[in-house]
Amino acid sequence: MTQYTAPRRDIDFVTNELLDYAGHYRSLPCGEDATPDMVDAIIGEAAKFAEEVLSPLNQSGDQQGCTWQDGEVTTPDGFKEAYKMWVEGGWQGLSHPAEYGGQGLPMSLGLIKSELVGTANWAWGMYPGLSLGAMNTLYVHGDEEQKQTYLGKLCSGEWTGTMCLTEAHCGSDLGQMKTRAELQDDGSYRLNGTKIFISAGEHDLTDNIVHIVLARTPDAPEGTKGISLFIVPKFLPGEDGEIGSRNGVSCGSIEHKMGIHANATCVINFDNATGYMLGEKNEGLAAMFTFMNTARVGTAIQGLAASELAYQNAWPYAMERYSMRALSGTKNRDKAGDAIIHHADVRRMLLTARAFAEGGRAMIYDAAIYADHMLFAPTEAERDAAENELGFLTPILKAFLTETGLESASNAMQVFGGHGYIAEHGMEQIYRDARIATMYEGTTGIQALDLIGRKVVLDGFKLYAAFSKKLYAQGLRSLFKGKRRGYGASLLCYTLGWNWKTVKMLARASRNRDAVSAASYDFLMISGYLSMAYYWSRMAEVAAEALEKNPSDSDFYRAKLETADFYFRRLLPRTRGHASAMDSSTDSVMGMPPERFPLR
Amino acid sequence: MTQYTAPRRDIDFVTNELLDYAGHYRSLPCGEDATPDMVDAIIGEAAKFAEEVLSPLNQSGDQQGCTWQDGEVTTPDGFKEAYKMWVEGGWQGLSHPAEYGGQGLPMSLGLIKSELVGTANWAWGMYPGLSLGAMNTLYVHGDEEQKQTYLGKLCSGEWTGTMCLTEAHCGSDLGQMKTRAELQDDGSYRLNGTKIFISAGEHDLTDNIVHIVLARTPDAPEGTKGISLFIVPKFLPGEDGEIGSRNGVSCGSIEHKMGIHANATCVINFDNATGYMLGEKNEGLAAMFTFMNTARVGTAIQGLAASELAYQNAWPYAMERYSMRALSGTKNRDKAGDAIIHHADVRRMLLTARAFAEGGRAMIYDAAIYADHMLFAPTEAERDAAENELGFLTPILKAFLTETGLESASNAMQVFGGHGYIAEHGMEQIYRDARIATMYEGTTGIQALDLIGRKVVLDGFKLYAAFSKKLYAQGLRSLFKGKRRGYGASLLCYTLGWNWKTVKMLARASRNRDAVSAASYDFLMISGYLSMAYYWSRMAEVAAEALEKNPSDSDFYRAKLETADFYFRRLLPRTRGHASAMDSSTDSVMGMPPERFPLR
Repeated sequence: MTQYTAPRRDIDFVTNELLDYAGHYRSLPCGEDATPDMVDAIIGEAAKFAEEVLSPLNQSGDQQGCTWQDGEVTTPDGFKEAYKMWVEGGWQGLSHPAEYGGQGLPMSLGLIKSELVGTANWAWGMYPGLSLGAMNTLYVHGDEEQKQTYLGKLCSGEWTGTMCLTEAHCGSDLGQMKTRAELQDDGSYRLNGTKIFISAGEHDLTDNIVHIVLARTPDAPEGTKGISLFIVPKFLPGEDGEIGSRNGVSCGSIEHKMGIHANATCVINFDNATGYMLGEKNEGLAAMFTFMNTARVGTAIQGLAASELAYQNAWPYAMERYSMRALSGTKNRDKAGDAIIHHADVRRMLLTARAFAEGGRAMIYDAAIYADHMLFAPTEAERDAAENELGFLTPILKAFLTETGLESASNAMQVFGGHGYIAEHGMEQIYRDARIATMYEGTTGIQALDLIGRKVVLDGFKLYAAFSKKLYAQGLRSLFKGKRRGYGASLLCYTLGWNWKTVKMLARASRNRDAVSAASYDFLMISGYLSMAYYWSRMAEVAAEALEKNPSDSDFYRAKLETADFYFRRLLPRTRGHASAMDSSTDSVMGMPPERFPLR
Repeated sequence: MTQYTAPRRDIDFVTNELLDYAGHYRSLPCGEDATPDMVDAIIGEAAKFAEEVLSPLNQSGDQQGCTWQDGEVTTPDGFKEAYKMWVEGGWQGLSHPAEYGGQGLPMSLGLIKSELVGTANWAWGMYPGLSLGAMNTLYVHGDEEQKQTYLGKLCSGEWTGTMCLTEAHCGSDLGQMKTRAELQDDGSYRLNGTKIFISAGEHDLTDNIVHIVLARTPDAPEGTKGISLFIVPKFLPGEDGEIGSRNGVSCGSIEHKMGIHANATCVINFDNATGYMLGEKNEGLAAMFTFMNTARVGTAIQGLAASELAYQNAWPYAMERYSMRALSGTKNRDKAGDAIIHHADVRRMLLTARAFAEGGRAMIYDAAIYADHMLFAPTEAERDAAENELGFLTPILKAFLTETGLESASNAMQVFGGHGYIAEHGMEQIYRDARIATMYEGTTGIQALDLIGRKVVLDGFKLYAAFSKKLYAQGLRSLFKGKRRGYGASLLCYTLGWNWKTVKMLARASRNRDAVSAASYDFLMISGYLSMAYYWSRMAEVAAEALEKNPSDSDFYRAKLETADFYFRRLLPRTRGHASAMDSSTDSVMGMPPERFPLR
């Protein structure tokens, strides 16, 4: 069985030594309560909840799974009790405004909370996690009455929320959606249709569930321009604000799937369900992006969580499993073999997971600062700038960290050899749970197109140039500062190579538009490796400086430097393969006509 | 649900157009019956059995799994009936000598049969597959009486066999094994101990199971030099050759695991079990390699099977799922979106699986020719040479093809988006079933050490030089022949780069032996990509020549060329990343002391 211990020292390193969260919080209007002591206490309490309440339910939840009967979903044993503690702890509204019952703390602190919860038990964390998406959408697009009616109940955790987008025939291409919403005399709408893949769509944790649903009105234009958002609660709110009559919403079935067994993935049927329009008519898709960006950063956390949980459960095994003698000479004389942590290839797998976990944490925590600025920066220009920056980073975070999370999980399973395949040890569960992360909330391919298409080409390369400049600046600083010069040189070279391949790709794209999509995946992966390299370069600098001061925990900083070394020498060079693929002919991927795919 | 259709055209291409199996069979003493017509008929019948009998049981077998009760294992519905048909068809002894009831056909034909069976239903195929390992071991090391008693029953399929190696505390490091075998007055042995991870160790398909067990006699030297092999049947053979009294062998439990649910992975207890020594005392480990090499090539087939099944079930979905418009303009005007096969990144994933499947098939089928020569070449020198060649290729085939098989399976799941995660479609099962392949029969890390340590360094670079020469010869031929020059140049450059990094690694190794193991994984992966490039280069030549003759199935050859193009431009360049990693400092992976792994 896997266990979770919050990496408090590393979280502290990233928030305080690398990123100066304390200074950042002092600059935020909502940050006055987020004093270093308070932040430390909150992280400590969240860590305790994750370690003591959620982690022990991770394997049993997977084995038991959710069950569906006559429209009702039963979650695994202990889930309801854990959720009750969550509500009592006031965790759900941590980063939402006090006027709706929240605690008004910064969004970034909420993301750290999500990491702790999600690493301990991703399937459980999805119930409050999806609810957060509904809360954000309501907060930004709801009118005051809607907020009063729903947001308070969601902030307290008394009710949960979901996001209903996908239909059987369309996921990414939401323009094809068919669910209909007809206006009633009282101003409400009547919804009919079926949604699939609704995570946390039905459960027994709360008395009510508030669905945020994408649907079309009868007069709506075709495609993505005719989609509106609706609030469709499972139980309509009564006069007193508590639950009233049952609405025409039901769970038709739940999916049997590879992992996240403890989270119900529901088919949700709307049969003349009463709904209320949220935001402007036909602007549902744009409004949806409020949710999508949060959800995508949330899913990036799933990648980080997989790397973290995989690493921290694999190294103890590598210390205690004795097999073969180390090539460099006997290490454990009293044993018939040496601990496998002395074997180079076991180290390679462990260090890969470690580098992805710690690098991913730095990437997400820094992006979280943009999220705070997006909401709370003093001027609109600053808020817009932060939103753009975050928009550029989001597909990188989502796709790169979930892909690397899968690799970490697979590596950690591999460290166990055949034992990694056995359910008892829990390693294969980490992989199965994480495997969805590159598919939902927009596949890696969709993220890659979003990055190169919308965020780079359509943006006129402004954000791309700014991102590149940031990499160059760090590379130059590192190169001339005299420490870790190799990393600076490495960062500069690889960034330059990436820029050059981008220019060449654009030249090809002027003749063939497919050149952009044919390069998109490799472009994204390089962006990811470079982005992570930027943080590893900075982390190495911080660690090297700290070591000069001869600190008591010098071993922590040495481990940081050793992991940075592994990243720059053994992971970052992978971009060479991606660069070659990105640089190769468009025909090599577009050339085969569809009718030749079946021939063999 | 996935379906399997044997890729008859591609099998025909590899056996007849690329490799000249007909000529090869004419040169073999056992090949006279293997006329082209006969080979075609056998492959056709095996394909039919795989498609019609085994493929329909693949998903139901996964869902139902094996059940254990009071030491008895029940296989999923339909498995027993399928096995009966297998026995009636005389499939088990296809490549074993007629004197023991086999059909005496070449080993290579048996490997093609294994591919067809294993791709349709890997979990089912493991029952006869493990039995083959036991048969080979008995055939090579058994005395005549042992062969008469057991081999006939195994060749007919009336009984099955297993290989009992692993114990809870040791897998790869068999020197730590504890199972004991004590000599009895009648010349038999009494075995006591517990083995784990025994695939097909107990089941209801046959009346008897013959375990081949590694154990130590009381006077044996420590470590790998004190291991002997024993035949331990579940039921002792009676006077009449049929089953007699029950032996002290029992199945203590079966494992709950990530995949291959339909194959029982057993804990086997030996309690005063009667066994008979097989081969020479204390030479069990060497004898075991007879089995290991077959098993490893067999596991390489699992990688090929994953790529093949993944590809052939993903392209139909990509043809029928309409989402978004293609960047290069509308393709399906009557639909709300274009078929996703028009999107570059979907093609990238499909072509990756296709290139690995077809390249893997060529690699395995050519290696199978060495396997035939190893057994049947006229002189001992030729047999030894073939064994050495196969020994060099085995770790490459096993590790590289299982790693790429996982990538193919993951890609194919990804093509389905969220639907790929749902059990119903069967895509996630391909991944779960294939995931064991990089772990059992020696992990990828073990294969990498075997390759670089035993097959390269300890061999004094003879096989390595011969392999490199083969690559250069093909590169030069292709370069000067005037067709596909780019592939020739590419093969030459990448091979040269690999050779140069190898020299540098050896220079480092003279100072630090860990330099070899630190480079081993990347060395193996490059060997795999280069080996596959060699076949893609040859296949492209064959296809280009065939096209000049204006054949009726020109589209098949065009698809072959397009897949070759994809391989050379988008997959082979990955070796650049591996080469950089291989070339980097040993310290980057060995530097962190074990006690710093927990720090965070």
